[in-house]
Amino acid sequence: MKREKSMVFIDRLIDRIIVTKNHCIVGIDPHENIIPKYIWDECYNSSMSKAENMGNLIYQMGKEIIDSIYDIVPGIKPQIAFFEQYGSFGIKAFENVCCYAKAKGLIVIADVKRGDIGSTARAYSDYYLGCEDTSLSVDSITVNPYLGRDSIEPFVNNCIDNNKGLFILVKTSNKSSSDIQDRLCNGKRIYEIVSDLIIGLEEKSMGNKGYSSIGAVVGGTYKEEGEHIRKQMKRTYFLVPGFGAQGAKASDLVGFFNDDGLGAIINSSRGIIGAYKLEEYKDKPFAIAARDAAINMRDEINKKLYEAGKVAW
Amino acid sequence: MKREKSMVFIDRLIDRIIVTKNHCIVGIDPHENIIPKYIWDECYNSSMSKAENMGNLIYQMGKEIIDSIYDIVPGIKPQIAFFEQYGSFGIKAFENVCCYAKAKGLIVIADVKRGDIGSTARAYSDYYLGCEDTSLSVDSITVNPYLGRDSIEPFVNNCIDNNKGLFILVKTSNKSSSDIQDRLCNGKRIYEIVSDLIIGLEEKSMGNKGYSSIGAVVGGTYKEEGEHIRKQMKRTYFLVPGFGAQGAKASDLVGFFNDDGLGAIINSSRGIIGAYKLEEYKDKPFAIAARDAAINMRDEINKKLYEAGKVAW
Repeated sequence: MKREKSMVFIDRLIDRIIVTKNHCIVGIDPHENIIPKYIWDECYNSSMSKAENMGNLIYQMGKEIIDSIYDIVPGIKPQIAFFEQYGSFGIKAFENVCCYAKAKGLIVIADVKRGDIGSTARAYSDYYLGCEDTSLSVDSITVNPYLGRDSIEPFVNNCIDNNKGLFILVKTSNKSSSDIQDRLCNGKRIYEIVSDLIIGLEEKSMGNKGYSSIGAVVGGTYKEEGEHIRKQMKRTYFLVPGFGAQGAKASDLVGFFNDDGLGAIINSSRGIIGAYKLEEYKDKPFAIAARDAAINMRDEINKKLYEAGKVAW
Repeated sequence: MKREKSMVFIDRLIDRIIVTKNHCIVGIDPHENIIPKYIWDECYNSSMSKAENMGNLIYQMGKEIIDSIYDIVPGIKPQIAFFEQYGSFGIKAFENVCCYAKAKGLIVIADVKRGDIGSTARAYSDYYLGCEDTSLSVDSITVNPYLGRDSIEPFVNNCIDNNKGLFILVKTSNKSSSDIQDRLCNGKRIYEIVSDLIIGLEEKSMGNKGYSSIGAVVGGTYKEEGEHIRKQMKRTYFLVPGFGAQGAKASDLVGFFNDDGLGAIINSSRGIIGAYKLEEYKDKPFAIAARDAAINMRDEINKKLYEAGKVAW
């Protein structure tokens, strides 16, 4: 049963990027020690279990972040691990955060990095990208390619049928991403082999704005590799983690974009939702600090793109 | 906060294998069309949402399977995707199935195939393998190595601190596992590079019975590769999917074991929990069919090991 019929994912994402004039998305990673004290004070109920309390706290935190940035960013990337760690209460909070963000018009990219085979992959895909009564049905998710093409297929099928998107891990932002992803096989690195797999899916997933709904995760901490992959994959949108806390700067990321000023969305999590703890924003309340940090990040990226002559609007 | 202090995971698993004289575990993959009609009739409540109903149904099904096999198998492998697809209600069922199985003395290997970096990996690890108030704290989980060594570390640390276990994807049972895993890099296949990573973790995770608590997932559908990996990894326990419905036969799996008659646990999901739908068991009730299928599988594997002179008891 179809619950919605809308534009192709990648066209919706690009529209939001252009309307907000912003290439940056906000990572909702509600780590326990980022939750502001006033939310603990307001929401913690000592007669409930810790898991139930944490579910309520992280939902409240997610909601306040969304309220503070929904009009200035194209979307959010909730990281499910920080919800899943509180079991069913955490997943309830995750579902509520995703629904709240969608109701506010945000693109929701659930960072779940799932990867499995056959009917198992279909079960994941039907939940995240399906249109069943029981589906969460976010706009897009991240997936892990280690199990190969047939493990990706059920997700791709739902993307096409339901106008959803995927970001497949290509080159991740962490130090050990080299262990597997950089291995050279017959003149190609593993991450390039994954890139080829994504390029092979382009034809059936192209939108009307020159990009495909099957994107790639490319860590902002690897400038050279990012620029190299960009040249290989002109029509692939990149989801770029690693900005801020992990070390990538705006100037490192210009080469992750195409000359049309599109092609990448840059994620920041702690740098936005934990901004109120940074020296720079320390006298500002949680939500105001997050909004200010999101505006600063937007302007920083736009400035570097402008200087490089890559402007999309 | 520590909730339990017990023997090293791999020693506990081997003890259960020897006590039950069984190398086979039962995969709890409660696919909607495997749930027996009488459970639908008993549990479905039309005033509740589909997701809530499905949570109740799959818990009931899992519980009945556990009741039917807990005394004859070493453990179970619940596949989280079939629970996660029903959101928070599904995860509640997953938690309840895992707790119920643990209370019955079964080893619980949660098939979650998680893989992420830094504090995200720690959040997953603390939930599945931790000893926090909010931890599910099963015995072991499966993880995906695509993100490299530092993505595995938080899981390994919890294994050592809390006597838990891991099974890292090496060579999966699906057809496309060759896309990435079989690539040849400098004379080594990617799955051998992952094997080396696991061997490197042996020293800190060895139990008292000659095996390490950091195991490998090796698909039973790849006989030659399985035998090859076995020779490289003498002290690694294999979790072997692919028996039955996916095509691996008992005779294919002898070479996945060491000469001591240990070294592998063979999983069957549909072949056990869906046995009542097979011609062979068609006049038997759901739970009896599952028990009979589990006994037949146990005997089949033991017979082949006996014929090969690989007997552990």
